[in-house]
Amino acid sequence: MSSFKEVSATEINEVMERSLIAFQEYKRISSDDKALFLETIATEIEALGDALIEQASSETNLPAARLVGERGRTTGQLRMFANMLREGSWVEASIDTAIPDKNPPKPDIRKLLIALGPVVVFGASNFPFAYSTAGGDTASALAAGCSVVVKAHPAHAATSQMVYEAIQKAIAKTKMPPYIFQHVHGSSFESGKALVQHEATAAVGFTGSFTGGKALYDYAAARKNPIPVFSEMGSINPVLLLPDSLEKNAVSLAKQYAASITLGMGQFCTNPGLLIAVESEGLNAFIEALSNEIEKTIPANMLHAGIHAAYNKKMQDALTEKGVALIKQSSNKTENLQALPTIAKVSGEIFLQNSVLHEEVFGPYSLLVVCKSMDELIEVWRSARGQLTTSLMGTDKDFADHPALLQTAESIAGRIVFNNVPTGVEVCPSMVHGGPFPASTDSRFTAVGIHAVKRWVRPVCYQNCPQQLLPVELQNDNPKKIWRLLNNEWTRDIIK
Amino acid sequence: MSSFKEVSATEINEVMERSLIAFQEYKRISSDDKALFLETIATEIEALGDALIEQASSETNLPAARLVGERGRTTGQLRMFANMLREGSWVEASIDTAIPDKNPPKPDIRKLLIALGPVVVFGASNFPFAYSTAGGDTASALAAGCSVVVKAHPAHAATSQMVYEAIQKAIAKTKMPPYIFQHVHGSSFESGKALVQHEATAAVGFTGSFTGGKALYDYAAARKNPIPVFSEMGSINPVLLLPDSLEKNAVSLAKQYAASITLGMGQFCTNPGLLIAVESEGLNAFIEALSNEIEKTIPANMLHAGIHAAYNKKMQDALTEKGVALIKQSSNKTENLQALPTIAKVSGEIFLQNSVLHEEVFGPYSLLVVCKSMDELIEVWRSARGQLTTSLMGTDKDFADHPALLQTAESIAGRIVFNNVPTGVEVCPSMVHGGPFPASTDSRFTAVGIHAVKRWVRPVCYQNCPQQLLPVELQNDNPKKIWRLLNNEWTRDIIK
Repeated sequence: MSSFKEVSATEINEVMERSLIAFQEYKRISSDDKALFLETIATEIEALGDALIEQASSETNLPAARLVGERGRTTGQLRMFANMLREGSWVEASIDTAIPDKNPPKPDIRKLLIALGPVVVFGASNFPFAYSTAGGDTASALAAGCSVVVKAHPAHAATSQMVYEAIQKAIAKTKMPPYIFQHVHGSSFESGKALVQHEATAAVGFTGSFTGGKALYDYAAARKNPIPVFSEMGSINPVLLLPDSLEKNAVSLAKQYAASITLGMGQFCTNPGLLIAVESEGLNAFIEALSNEIEKTIPANMLHAGIHAAYNKKMQDALTEKGVALIKQSSNKTENLQALPTIAKVSGEIFLQNSVLHEEVFGPYSLLVVCKSMDELIEVWRSARGQLTTSLMGTDKDFADHPALLQTAESIAGRIVFNNVPTGVEVCPSMVHGGPFPASTDSRFTAVGIHAVKRWVRPVCYQNCPQQLLPVELQNDNPKKIWRLLNNEWTRDIIK
Repeated sequence: MSSFKEVSATEINEVMERSLIAFQEYKRISSDDKALFLETIATEIEALGDALIEQASSETNLPAARLVGERGRTTGQLRMFANMLREGSWVEASIDTAIPDKNPPKPDIRKLLIALGPVVVFGASNFPFAYSTAGGDTASALAAGCSVVVKAHPAHAATSQMVYEAIQKAIAKTKMPPYIFQHVHGSSFESGKALVQHEATAAVGFTGSFTGGKALYDYAAARKNPIPVFSEMGSINPVLLLPDSLEKNAVSLAKQYAASITLGMGQFCTNPGLLIAVESEGLNAFIEALSNEIEKTIPANMLHAGIHAAYNKKMQDALTEKGVALIKQSSNKTENLQALPTIAKVSGEIFLQNSVLHEEVFGPYSLLVVCKSMDELIEVWRSARGQLTTSLMGTDKDFADHPALLQTAESIAGRIVFNNVPTGVEVCPSMVHGGPFPASTDSRFTAVGIHAVKRWVRPVCYQNCPQQLLPVELQNDNPKKIWRLLNNEWTRDIIK
């Protein structure tokens, strides 16, 4: 899809070697200077103005308003990490002072988080800004102190190139190591493999399909020295429609979910692809209202021809699976790369027997699983393990009647949504965007929010280190006044 | 070596299924009750009295005094994690309150760490208590809220069985789920593979050889759903003997390191197996003093026949490598399973050419690499990547003359020791026991100290969750008065 030349093996080697050298130089740059660098990237992206929005819209078919919002999210993330660096407590400094008269003497031990090394980032097709070139993975890795190499997504390679050039300006303006951020083009698995398996590569971030994310994980695990891979992959985001809520709120639930299912033509990893409910009058009312909403939806173009073709194939295949019945599609005609919003249903019994129905259909498609009982609903829900989110639409009565729901939700997903839709990932410290495999390859981390930085760091400790050699965050006088765990108590105090 | 029957595939399946059920029950038990459980394990281990020490000594050849110390470390760790649970802040609670009038409205989002699920622990032969049945992996996993299955080390299976029975008593006394801790015997790779690859297994802890730890990592990565493995493996713990320090402190350095090299017959993963220095008069004095010390050492029995045979073979093989010269061995005769403390030397040039010399010789062996220059010393040091520790023996002048040493040290090891020996791992929050591969399979975590708990947890967030359903740590009134990140500020306040 891209007019850019595929990166060669020789170039990858050069890029990664330069990245390692830049990483070592970047280590000597202060947190405040790194913060300024991140802010300058944000400013330079903004300085691209409408040209960037137009380029992205022409490559992704996403409307300008959506892209303006996503650009704001992207620059907001960069500034959020800049603030995190200026404040400084993110390094999780911990100090245990010496006890010389203990037997044996207890040494002075001090710990903090340091950067892993060069990080390779593979961006997402559905977020050309926020999960791509200068997106969350890049921003968090640069904040952590890592150098970054982005493989431009071939579906929006020219957009990626523009953002890369903005970052280059920021590098020059803030006097950062020239190769602290590099950018390569390519669409082959071989390029991905070579980037992941290069000796200098220390960690990998990926957002996209299960096939791509799992392949990178496998390449990394097969290295002589395995490295961490955080792949954020597909998810069907099961939604429980609980009985009392269906009885009381059928129409409003239907409106809320019709909007979520079709938002951005369903091209979100948090799209609600699976609705689960027990048969009831309330459910019938919900189905009727949801049908009315879906019927009225206006199809829009999908991101690119590959995603459009995959949606049509997977959606149509799903509808031909035994026991699956179409509920409703948009009554509007489609043309070009437009997707047809579609809802279907199946019984709980058949869903449990057919694992094909558990797979993501990336696009505005959702499958309603109609269960005979709450027990079957729980069984259906539990069978869909490894999700970014799961949502519980219920009244106080529903939650009182079924007190064990939360424990199951925790075992399934990284984020549990109550009486809300899973689409819309708030960028804040408490956000978890990740989850048990296959939602991600490492459920111990989040891809969104300041704690996304933790994917790219490791702790190191200093035993009996002279004051003048210690990182500034661990020095007695705590010049940045950061929070530190001092002899197992949190404090911002200095050490006398 | 063990008289216990190898666990069968059927038994492994039963054990893991019971472990999953116990994990789910354990989730509903309060932190305070879990704390009492850990303390009761400590009490029950102490109640085994001398019988436990005698059994362990007969299986491991370790002297009683050492085992009494290690038992204290083990019960101390259990109580440390109990205290952590009672205090409560370890869950890293984070709360972002709602902003309803934002566009779009910002939901209420709250996050904390929850347990991964059943953890399989493979203990170490060289620490029959502290890194075995009720050791750091088990204590941290139980504290995290995980169920635990230990595969007893075949070299001290009867000791392991005794500790298991003590834990069973603690389970009964504190009314824990009966299968929250289980214990199997076995020595085959097949048993290890079946445990790691069982569907119910959520994570793995291992302490031991590279071969064993890497095999478990590979089994886990090959699962349909990969799981985290924390293997703490071998390390040669490079020590820099810097010029000015050698000139001023040759004899005291030699005494300090002779003791560290031979401590516990070198059977520690933090044993200093590699000394690196630039040729000088000071180094000659160091060599002479170290020789005198090593010559006087009294050989003692190693842990078991396998380790003894491996030591003799690897040590003798190392001495026959081209360019390696024996400096000194203990002048005492050895018998039974006694090891002969040995030091050898090689030039920097030859060390850099022969990767065999970079391998761990588990036992009281250390190789001195004699370099032509500081540049060569740095090159030799950097070639030994992926270490638990690295030590810098230097004066203020040394550190002023060579300001870039710390950055290199950080890239090599999890713990950087200044003017001290690497043996002796202090159990405290600031300790890092881990490091870049192959020191461990995941450098982002430590195996020692309270933060070892982070290996077994993942974050989960709750969006717009009703107060009464939230985990106690996330409720507005903060009943445990824990530290929480509230709208990105650390506080122990309640939310009004």
